[in-house]
Amino acid sequence: MHAYRSHTCVDLNKSNVGDTVRLAGWVHRVRDHGGVLFIDLRDHYGITQVIADGDSPVFSELEKVRSEWCIRIDGNVLERDESLVNPNLPTGEIEVFVRDLEVLGASDELPLMVFGDQEYPEETRLKYRFLDLRREQMQKNMTLRSDVVSSMRKRMWDKGFKEYQTPIITASSPEGARDFLVPSRLHPGKFYALPQAPQQFKQLMMVAGFDKYFQIAPCFRDEDPRADRSPTDFYQLDLEMSFVEQQDVFDTIAPVLAGVFEEFGGGRKVDAPSEWPQISYRDAALWYGSDKPDLRNPIKMQVVSEHFAGSGFAIFAKLLEQDGTEIRAIPAPKGGSRKFCDRMNKFAQGEGLPGMGYIFWRDQGEGLEAAGPLAKNIGPERTEAIRQQLGLGVGDAAFFLGGKPKAFEKVAGKARDVIGAELGLTEQDRFAFAWIVDFPIYEQDEESGKIDFEHNPFSMPQGGMDALNGDPLEVLGYQYDLACNGYELVSGAIRNHKPEIMLKAFELAGYDEAEVKSRFGALYKAFQYGAPPHGGCAAGVDRIVMLLADQQNIREVMLFPMNQRAEDLMMNAPSDPSSDQLMELGLRVIPQE
Amino acid sequence: MHAYRSHTCVDLNKSNVGDTVRLAGWVHRVRDHGGVLFIDLRDHYGITQVIADGDSPVFSELEKVRSEWCIRIDGNVLERDESLVNPNLPTGEIEVFVRDLEVLGASDELPLMVFGDQEYPEETRLKYRFLDLRREQMQKNMTLRSDVVSSMRKRMWDKGFKEYQTPIITASSPEGARDFLVPSRLHPGKFYALPQAPQQFKQLMMVAGFDKYFQIAPCFRDEDPRADRSPTDFYQLDLEMSFVEQQDVFDTIAPVLAGVFEEFGGGRKVDAPSEWPQISYRDAALWYGSDKPDLRNPIKMQVVSEHFAGSGFAIFAKLLEQDGTEIRAIPAPKGGSRKFCDRMNKFAQGEGLPGMGYIFWRDQGEGLEAAGPLAKNIGPERTEAIRQQLGLGVGDAAFFLGGKPKAFEKVAGKARDVIGAELGLTEQDRFAFAWIVDFPIYEQDEESGKIDFEHNPFSMPQGGMDALNGDPLEVLGYQYDLACNGYELVSGAIRNHKPEIMLKAFELAGYDEAEVKSRFGALYKAFQYGAPPHGGCAAGVDRIVMLLADQQNIREVMLFPMNQRAEDLMMNAPSDPSSDQLMELGLRVIPQE
Repeated sequence: MHAYRSHTCVDLNKSNVGDTVRLAGWVHRVRDHGGVLFIDLRDHYGITQVIADGDSPVFSELEKVRSEWCIRIDGNVLERDESLVNPNLPTGEIEVFVRDLEVLGASDELPLMVFGDQEYPEETRLKYRFLDLRREQMQKNMTLRSDVVSSMRKRMWDKGFKEYQTPIITASSPEGARDFLVPSRLHPGKFYALPQAPQQFKQLMMVAGFDKYFQIAPCFRDEDPRADRSPTDFYQLDLEMSFVEQQDVFDTIAPVLAGVFEEFGGGRKVDAPSEWPQISYRDAALWYGSDKPDLRNPIKMQVVSEHFAGSGFAIFAKLLEQDGTEIRAIPAPKGGSRKFCDRMNKFAQGEGLPGMGYIFWRDQGEGLEAAGPLAKNIGPERTEAIRQQLGLGVGDAAFFLGGKPKAFEKVAGKARDVIGAELGLTEQDRFAFAWIVDFPIYEQDEESGKIDFEHNPFSMPQGGMDALNGDPLEVLGYQYDLACNGYELVSGAIRNHKPEIMLKAFELAGYDEAEVKSRFGALYKAFQYGAPPHGGCAAGVDRIVMLLADQQNIREVMLFPMNQRAEDLMMNAPSDPSSDQLMELGLRVIPQE
Repeated sequence: MHAYRSHTCVDLNKSNVGDTVRLAGWVHRVRDHGGVLFIDLRDHYGITQVIADGDSPVFSELEKVRSEWCIRIDGNVLERDESLVNPNLPTGEIEVFVRDLEVLGASDELPLMVFGDQEYPEETRLKYRFLDLRREQMQKNMTLRSDVVSSMRKRMWDKGFKEYQTPIITASSPEGARDFLVPSRLHPGKFYALPQAPQQFKQLMMVAGFDKYFQIAPCFRDEDPRADRSPTDFYQLDLEMSFVEQQDVFDTIAPVLAGVFEEFGGGRKVDAPSEWPQISYRDAALWYGSDKPDLRNPIKMQVVSEHFAGSGFAIFAKLLEQDGTEIRAIPAPKGGSRKFCDRMNKFAQGEGLPGMGYIFWRDQGEGLEAAGPLAKNIGPERTEAIRQQLGLGVGDAAFFLGGKPKAFEKVAGKARDVIGAELGLTEQDRFAFAWIVDFPIYEQDEESGKIDFEHNPFSMPQGGMDALNGDPLEVLGYQYDLACNGYELVSGAIRNHKPEIMLKAFELAGYDEAEVKSRFGALYKAFQYGAPPHGGCAAGVDRIVMLLADQQNIREVMLFPMNQRAEDLMMNAPSDPSSDQLMELGLRVIPQE
């Protein structure tokens, strides 16, 4: 017999009754029923009940084992009394009577319990991660993550992509976030950097003719931590293709992701890729107040400026006399009560706005009636026109925000989320996807008036060189995101592969050729040697797993995460370097105050 | 029609004759046959011949394209004249007559040619890696690498393993090599480290109950570069299993590797795992002079001390009077000529030895005769005894080395390689594997007499605690390597999971409990909470691909390698940090002299 086990803890069933077996695992739970010991023995695969009484030659030894000891037992398989069968366990019809015992690893007193649902402070969980990970939910989350990544790989292979590993120790590249640096020993005083993403390498792969690249790529950004972001490394399903247009990229990644959500979504509805709308960045801002809208929420905002221009509601009427202002409505079906409307108004105030005007429609026995101060100010005709435009009726409400859209769009988006959730309009158990397209290439700093890249500088402007000769703020890029349930899951672009257009694009953002060469030298040079048109995207692996596992915190889907202060409490990182190490690297630590 | 291509450059054949098609790719080669242009158009998948003459509306534009321009053409598929069919190309029966042309990316003058086999200095190749990678051999090598890694993953999944990603930014851990450090911004003056291997994390995974882990894991060692080693990062197929013994690990990894070698070995013979011998570390040193023997070479060395003790060959006879000395023979079938023997003797001298004594056997018409000075010194009886022990005959030779084995084993191993190669004894086109087992846990420093770990400190000593109470130098570990064709492909061990045995093992090497806690704190702590017996191994991905691709240099199987000075000439790494970056990290660069 094998030294440790003849079966795992999920294997045994009625067909094994009478067999002599060997099991190994952890003591999940011990119950002592006066002379009869019941132990739930747990391994990665399942749980088997093992029992002993005074007839067992190892009864007294078994009495000593405690939770989370790792043990090996030999015994024979017994059928359980029908009344004791546990239909929720694959092994629920049997139990194993213990005849031999070996303690493989005893345990000190536990800083956290594996059995049960007790909550522990995150610091405790991370310090004793090797115990925390034994808990059922964590085993499930990590297994899910592993399975999701495997499924992504298989789906990408099936689409003719090959996975290639790009360098992890490489050059600093200013792509937006902050690099992690790695001091060089062979070149003291110089530094490598960890890649924020394999962006430049995957584009170089296309110039090198590899056609279809993907990678489950580790990415490194030295960012301040928050709940849905790791402070150090995270993973992307990164892909790039040559000789493609935007729609080709969509047609590639959409079925991969839809497939993964179908496979691991636990029966939640997954919108089919053919139904994923393509919404322009500007429409998304207007309709949803967000470039990552949650389309499970049916609310779509509308411009209603015309109904307020010159109206009796002086605040909006005056506002509309200024350039670039708008009034937008958030329709709220079934929100037609003063109580609800007042609560939403308070919500807006809590977000720093003066408030949200509202109208709601009721029938107090005399037919349709518009209520709320706003309705009185603008009068029945305008009110009715608004109702008709928004398609609302008795029991519904609408909220209104005005000003320059940039100033209130974000709050409008949040209000839409809250209204959808509170009114139960937002569907549950559904993954709703939308492509957000036509991102502007440039943005203007309000204060300095300076034009800079809105996102990343690698995207091809729609209209190419001609477009760059017009108003930069009007230039849209072949640049896109995929939103799902209010999260950005994917970001990508068709790249700018023409050196002359690249130079012009950078020039508009205030970078001269010398700076392009120094910051993006490899790409700029590569583009001089027969660069193919290419594009791609990257999907956030951690976030996808979070959504599938229904978790709000990225640390629930990572094996050994850092805490919020970017420390690993288990491994003790970061730590003080030795003076030898600093010497070799040619570095000195500046004493902190 | 698609904007760039209706087919790839490998797709078209006779069945497409008459079709209008669109192709995109690189101009591989242009031939101008006086009014008729022949262009080999190349993409990742293949080559298609496209042609044009004065009848083509784009003939004059096509005349301007040069090698490595990226173009898109429209045209119609023509059948080639039977005399012009190229049976070596999948597209060899057709050509495409060009009717439209778009230059997608022109090229400057090329620093290296993609077409043809011209050699270029490595610096040029690495600086223009995006061009170098377009070359046929490089496309093949990178595709092979990608396919090998995919195959490994599939095979591991089939064996019930899941892949888990362990942290890349983590703690410094003294495992033998030098760490790359990463300064922390949030904790100025403190440093993270990149993992030399996921060793501690995979063991923690086992303590956390994950049972079967694997990872195609990036590993980071700040080592001085050499041909078969990357100066920064490299990849391992890393695996770990719980509740296993050594043979279980062998039974897991052997079919995975054998399968990969079968799949990608191009028909070369692959020894079946059931035939892979298990050779103790000590026998390997004796028989092959190496712990990574090349078993394609049938030569097996033997101890022949008894034939020289008290013999007339004074050098060896005297040597044998000292403790710990031995005489070993390298049999050399078919090596029986003075010329060959003298050459091997010179080889040994070149390696720093005084020389290798030899005997060779010939028949000059008077029957078997032993020749060489050594035979005369020891006389015919001893010579004949040696011949019989080694099983040699007419036309064969044997070489002799004496002293303390440690002092000459390495040269003996090299001599065995050279003899095997020169005499054509070493089989070609075969992958020959051997497990090397029973590594000693400790070694003694010759000078200081200090006992230290021979390899890594994580292995379980054979015999457990009892063994540690005896002579440390006699303690063997459950520690093993897999050798293939003279390379170490895999290294692994059954781990020491018992905290008390761990402490004792470290104590013997001079580390007290405080030091164990500070250096391996996470593992040591984890072992107090019900650690399972576990073990595993790691296989060198880069080296496996090198063997399969028949390359001697690791840079031939890496996409974007560093040069031998650990510089990336294309990306310009490492480079000077900005003063802002240094400030944020709380570091100062010490000026170099």
